[in-house]
Amino acid sequence: MSLIDLSKQIAIGIDIGGTNTKFGLVNHRGEILAKGSIKTEDYNQVEDFIEALYVNIKPLIDEVSQNTRLDGIGVGAPNANYFTGTIELAPNLPWKGVVPFAELMKAKFGVPCKMTNDANAAALGEMMFGAARGMKDFIMITLGTGVGSGIISGGNLIYGHDGFAGELGHTIVKPGGRKHWSTGSEGSLEAYASATGIAITAKKFRAEFPDSMLNQYPEDAINSKTVHECAEKGDPTAIEVFRYTGQKLGEALANFVMFSSPQAILLFGGVIKAGDFLLKPAKLHMERNLLPIFRSKVKLVFSELDEADAAILGASALVWENK
Amino acid sequence: MSLIDLSKQIAIGIDIGGTNTKFGLVNHRGEILAKGSIKTEDYNQVEDFIEALYVNIKPLIDEVSQNTRLDGIGVGAPNANYFTGTIELAPNLPWKGVVPFAELMKAKFGVPCKMTNDANAAALGEMMFGAARGMKDFIMITLGTGVGSGIISGGNLIYGHDGFAGELGHTIVKPGGRKHWSTGSEGSLEAYASATGIAITAKKFRAEFPDSMLNQYPEDAINSKTVHECAEKGDPTAIEVFRYTGQKLGEALANFVMFSSPQAILLFGGVIKAGDFLLKPAKLHMERNLLPIFRSKVKLVFSELDEADAAILGASALVWENK
Repeated sequence: MSLIDLSKQIAIGIDIGGTNTKFGLVNHRGEILAKGSIKTEDYNQVEDFIEALYVNIKPLIDEVSQNTRLDGIGVGAPNANYFTGTIELAPNLPWKGVVPFAELMKAKFGVPCKMTNDANAAALGEMMFGAARGMKDFIMITLGTGVGSGIISGGNLIYGHDGFAGELGHTIVKPGGRKHWSTGSEGSLEAYASATGIAITAKKFRAEFPDSMLNQYPEDAINSKTVHECAEKGDPTAIEVFRYTGQKLGEALANFVMFSSPQAILLFGGVIKAGDFLLKPAKLHMERNLLPIFRSKVKLVFSELDEADAAILGASALVWENK
Repeated sequence: MSLIDLSKQIAIGIDIGGTNTKFGLVNHRGEILAKGSIKTEDYNQVEDFIEALYVNIKPLIDEVSQNTRLDGIGVGAPNANYFTGTIELAPNLPWKGVVPFAELMKAKFGVPCKMTNDANAAALGEMMFGAARGMKDFIMITLGTGVGSGIISGGNLIYGHDGFAGELGHTIVKPGGRKHWSTGSEGSLEAYASATGIAITAKKFRAEFPDSMLNQYPEDAINSKTVHECAEKGDPTAIEVFRYTGQKLGEALANFVMFSSPQAILLFGGVIKAGDFLLKPAKLHMERNLLPIFRSKVKLVFSELDEADAAILGASALVWENK
């Protein structure tokens, strides 16, 4: 026996969201050999959910199993705890309380199962297969319905003493600022830089500027996509929505940089479709708030991973972390 | 040969400050076997400074050297870079530019030399010998003339990609707030929670409240010590100075907790003499700004190390880090 042929090892990556759960078989090169999905919300009992996963994934394993070895399962899920393998009090999932998810998975599939929250998984995926390949210090910020984050320092994810580190979306960027619709906190990054926050900003700004194109849309059509459309057409109010959002984001990023001094910050999620409308002011205000020793050093870039696959790749990366 | 007798290994710990440089020989139990100091500002050439260190330290080594083995030298200094062993552009030290300090020390003393900034060294000292013994995730905040920090995550110091991580004193707690006297940034933690910041707050508040005891002191006697004296005597304005400072500190700490989820935050430095006048509002505002999953979990405590020795112990801990 000598070297192990890494190309023959595979991992299952599973991304559990409130509505859908996506899964795939991934090899060491970050290729998804087979994939599928089930509806999370169809299963009120976690045991039924795991049974459904098994029924759907087993045929995929059998299909690719010649010459391959299944090393384990990686799961990204809201409120998943890396240390305990549990999903704890997740507000958007059907299973209440503290669910021993990793243990149940291991019993069913017969291989080890590791878990972490979805943003941490995405950061691992970027390090193994995406824009952060070869980087040992970077921060991943997901700008979607909410704002999530995963922090890599010295080549490792920062989990904190309890597995819950990296809730950067909930750091306060404006004390006494906008009240968060769910947490009740005032002035958090998520209140401004999430898709939800951008829609709030846009509704506020369009009321102040009756000439804005944004006023041509009904209330419920105001979202980061329609604001982007108006910005592309040159609407100053829409452009200002992203400038304001970028400023808040940039100020927060400066604080993050002075914490862990990453070589890059990766942005990910639906909101980044705004492109330079968001990126330029974010970069400007990040640089402006940094100590001189940190300036012009930190790359601020968009993720390279295909959004549909990133979550699966990231979850599978948990299996090979530190190996 | 079997086990190594750890009690016979020693390290040199050196703490370089703008005025004085303190050094000591330290064993694995955190006992300082011998110590001394020289004036940093007496040496315009770094080579002369290192020669003076050697002349002063060599006799101490000879004195304790029976049955001991010198493992190395650890140095805490402003703007010291862990990765390169250099001191870079330190505004308060006599040597300009980028000084290859570790290399020069190694050539002179014939043992390895490791360096980091003073606050990082203090954090290592707390982990090896102080209030953070046995902890793998904590943040050390030094509240002195400035505000420094050292972050331990998963048992390791966070250095960042360039060795400069952990500048938490320069994170912004109030965008557009008080202008920093040196960096020019607006609303940084250091502008409020350092001894310098507290004196500024006290001068502002006493002008607003002519009845305050603080008005019995000349302008240049207003500092965190005199504010503490007035607070002890029940002066409401002095108490409000610490409450305001504690609020800003607590808001900043909440953001730090949501970054790395530490089990404790250790406060260190002259300002902590204010005791509960500072600690209680800091704790209140930290808890208030945390997501529920972090609440009532993080210990907020004062350092246990003797301040005069802590810097030496911390620097010496660099030698044995990760061993």
